[in-house]
Amino acid sequence: MTTYRIDLAYDGTGFHGYAGQPQVRTVQGELEEALFRLTGRVDTTVAGRTDKGVHASGQVVSFEHDKDLDCDRVRRSLNRQLGPEIAVLAVSRAPDGFSARFSAMSRSYTYLVLNRPAPDPFLARISWHYETPVDIGRMNAAAAYLLGEHDFAAFCRGAPGRSTVRRLDSAAWSDRGAGLLAFDIVASSFCHQMVRSIVALLVEVGRGRVDPAGVAAILESADRSKAKGAAPPHGLTLVTVAYE
Amino acid sequence: MTTYRIDLAYDGTGFHGYAGQPQVRTVQGELEEALFRLTGRVDTTVAGRTDKGVHASGQVVSFEHDKDLDCDRVRRSLNRQLGPEIAVLAVSRAPDGFSARFSAMSRSYTYLVLNRPAPDPFLARISWHYETPVDIGRMNAAAAYLLGEHDFAAFCRGAPGRSTVRRLDSAAWSDRGAGLLAFDIVASSFCHQMVRSIVALLVEVGRGRVDPAGVAAILESADRSKAKGAAPPHGLTLVTVAYE
Repeated sequence: MTTYRIDLAYDGTGFHGYAGQPQVRTVQGELEEALFRLTGRVDTTVAGRTDKGVHASGQVVSFEHDKDLDCDRVRRSLNRQLGPEIAVLAVSRAPDGFSARFSAMSRSYTYLVLNRPAPDPFLARISWHYETPVDIGRMNAAAAYLLGEHDFAAFCRGAPGRSTVRRLDSAAWSDRGAGLLAFDIVASSFCHQMVRSIVALLVEVGRGRVDPAGVAAILESADRSKAKGAAPPHGLTLVTVAYE
Repeated sequence: MTTYRIDLAYDGTGFHGYAGQPQVRTVQGELEEALFRLTGRVDTTVAGRTDKGVHASGQVVSFEHDKDLDCDRVRRSLNRQLGPEIAVLAVSRAPDGFSARFSAMSRSYTYLVLNRPAPDPFLARISWHYETPVDIGRMNAAAAYLLGEHDFAAFCRGAPGRSTVRRLDSAAWSDRGAGLLAFDIVASSFCHQMVRSIVALLVEVGRGRVDPAGVAAILESADRSKAKGAAPPHGLTLVTVAYE
């Protein structure tokens, strides 16, 4: 068996998330159907199971195959079948035992907020349009409390019995101009709705309804009901997955 | 009567162009319907009548009204009605006699070409995915022949009896990285399909099928059949309109 790696990007607007489910259009479903036509049935493993409406610019998928595949031909064929909503950026051989999911050291996500009165038609699919002005200095002060290893249960949806301890490597807002704010966050891995739950809370901090120190208290409470729900999915993009 | 100016942006994907037509969805149709609800019937004038599928990030529209309108309220109401495909960036009072069309000194368009094997889901709606590698040095050498005042009949569609003389102020390709090429072009005004006809020809130059000097010969011929058709509309965006 040979292990293969696929790097892909997708606009999540038209999909019910990454993970395959019966009866609905998913990225995994489309990808495995296209791979099936080309190589026969394969089971794939993904680095980050993005939710419905969430995008990826650097998702990673791995699979094993008993045939010797021409990677360039696979890439071209997948793009013909899947473009333009899903783009296969690269297909390559991976070291034996490589798993897109279990070999990953960390994941980076970016959440975009368009913080101005006027919408932007070219960012509407990939950013949350939030009109009330927010202060990113306050939001960055609050985000600093989340760095390091913590139990993120207050920011995790529906994970009874599973560990919600994660290591947050970085989390910071930057101003990209014309009202576009970007929140870049890197962690070992993320529990369900973790980025969107953090964004929803930090936006409350940014508009002055929660103090930065209040974020530390909510984190320590490990109580999801203390958080502020989840920001909408379409502002979120999985940007990179890091391997050794 | 007071003259008003609207600055707007739109994703042209879902519209049959800017100009109002019966039975189909147009930007002008949507805008005038929204204005009607707010202020009663108004006739608007536009700086650039973009074709079906063409976008705008800086379109300008003017209209006259006998009432004293609250510009900020008009902007908010239009955005509520029209977003997110159409965004009203600003509504302001204009000097008496201002016309979005006739007062304009020049228009700037940008045409995006994604010149690499893999598509990009986030650029698919606003760029032409063209896989064959092109040389922007050759394309810029060819574009230089078009600068200044010329009869652009070879690049104009269906304009019998009307002047096709235009003044081209600048036209240059730049590399935005990751295979994205941008063609920025500024002229007094543009005849129908002029930018897209120039792009189609310059891409032929870029891949080596036409010499840069051949562009000068086609321009001088004033013969549309000598050109290379028109690049697809979805790569084109009206970026700015300049006034005195």
